[in-house]
Amino acid sequence: MSVVTIERKVLEKNDALAEKNRELFHQSSIFVLNMVSSPGSGKTSILERTLEFLNGKLKIAVIEGDVQTDFDAQRVAKFGVPVVQIVTHGGCHLDASLVQDALRSLDLNGIQLLIIENVGNLVCPSNYDLGEHMKVVVASTTEGDDKPLKYPAMFRNASILLVNKIDLVPYVNCSLSALKGNALCMNPALTIFETSCTTKQGIAEWCNWLEKQTADLQKKNQ
Amino acid sequence: MSVVTIERKVLEKNDALAEKNRELFHQSSIFVLNMVSSPGSGKTSILERTLEFLNGKLKIAVIEGDVQTDFDAQRVAKFGVPVVQIVTHGGCHLDASLVQDALRSLDLNGIQLLIIENVGNLVCPSNYDLGEHMKVVVASTTEGDDKPLKYPAMFRNASILLVNKIDLVPYVNCSLSALKGNALCMNPALTIFETSCTTKQGIAEWCNWLEKQTADLQKKNQ
Repeated sequence: MSVVTIERKVLEKNDALAEKNRELFHQSSIFVLNMVSSPGSGKTSILERTLEFLNGKLKIAVIEGDVQTDFDAQRVAKFGVPVVQIVTHGGCHLDASLVQDALRSLDLNGIQLLIIENVGNLVCPSNYDLGEHMKVVVASTTEGDDKPLKYPAMFRNASILLVNKIDLVPYVNCSLSALKGNALCMNPALTIFETSCTTKQGIAEWCNWLEKQTADLQKKNQ
Repeated sequence: MSVVTIERKVLEKNDALAEKNRELFHQSSIFVLNMVSSPGSGKTSILERTLEFLNGKLKIAVIEGDVQTDFDAQRVAKFGVPVVQIVTHGGCHLDASLVQDALRSLDLNGIQLLIIENVGNLVCPSNYDLGEHMKVVVASTTEGDDKPLKYPAMFRNASILLVNKIDLVPYVNCSLSALKGNALCMNPALTIFETSCTTKQGIAEWCNWLEKQTADLQKKNQ
């Protein structure tokens, strides 16, 4: 049996489990995001600003995925939301089975929005459906404007692009129009927000959009 | 046959091929580096500054690894050095077999230093020996100071750490001493250089070290 066959079977098994997660999210009317990016693009910082902004407006839970440490879960727990840390011990991405396990430890009662922060990796998480409604890819301006062309699968499979660290544009070699153009070239359907967790630029727009998506889902499921 | 068994067999096969690459490098007295990092940490920029600084001093060849595009090979080719681009078409790391293939297209005659730039990924390349003398991990200050703790395998398996984008420290939430401390906590044997491709800080020290390593290898093999 070849490695490729094994990989296909792994993906098929994952897709079946992702469907189960999706059913659970549908029954509970929970809007679910899968946040992906390179290491250090600012996923956890965006999560912190999001939890701060939506405090009292939405009931949110978080699943954190990391190769090692529970640092991110600790950062998120400070905002008083339910959070479960998945440590992959070397694994390069989350999968639907790991999320299913994490869901057993989460009280989803009343939760309207679940944010899953994936392992920092711009390649491997792109193939693994977790049952989410949308993938959100975070690209930091410090990574340069060519990343959508060099890592196309992640940008093709995402619905949302957060261009983060927008405050650092004056200091780095990154054209914002090229970055957004390259991303739209890979995936013309991308919705793009520009954000900075330092100046909080764009955080309100992003959170208002999240609130609307969540409300729309609740209405649809009523 | 389980996925874990398949993975072990893949790694064993890779290690055997890596040994063959290593023998070739030894016979040709070529010092070989495997550069690894997150996407956008500045591996290619460091390569450009290195080729510029060592122009006329060392005979260098480059192997570029990318998921998609030959952008990096094009950037490197401008410096007049032999370069081969490996496109992995979705693959998340280079392996010894891909490098073996690339070596067939490279004229190694007279080459003293070969730099292999791996796919931007802080997880998967850590397990794959390419036959190199040393792994060089690049960590950008914009990624924050916790990455060595969150992605330990890469820092444990590397011999050199380049702390890059040192010029951006005033604008980002990153303590240099914490970043270096965390890296040394994972791997006390790491040699650390601080670099900036914008101000060229640290490039001379890094290149002088490279020149010395290459000269030492040539002497040892005489």
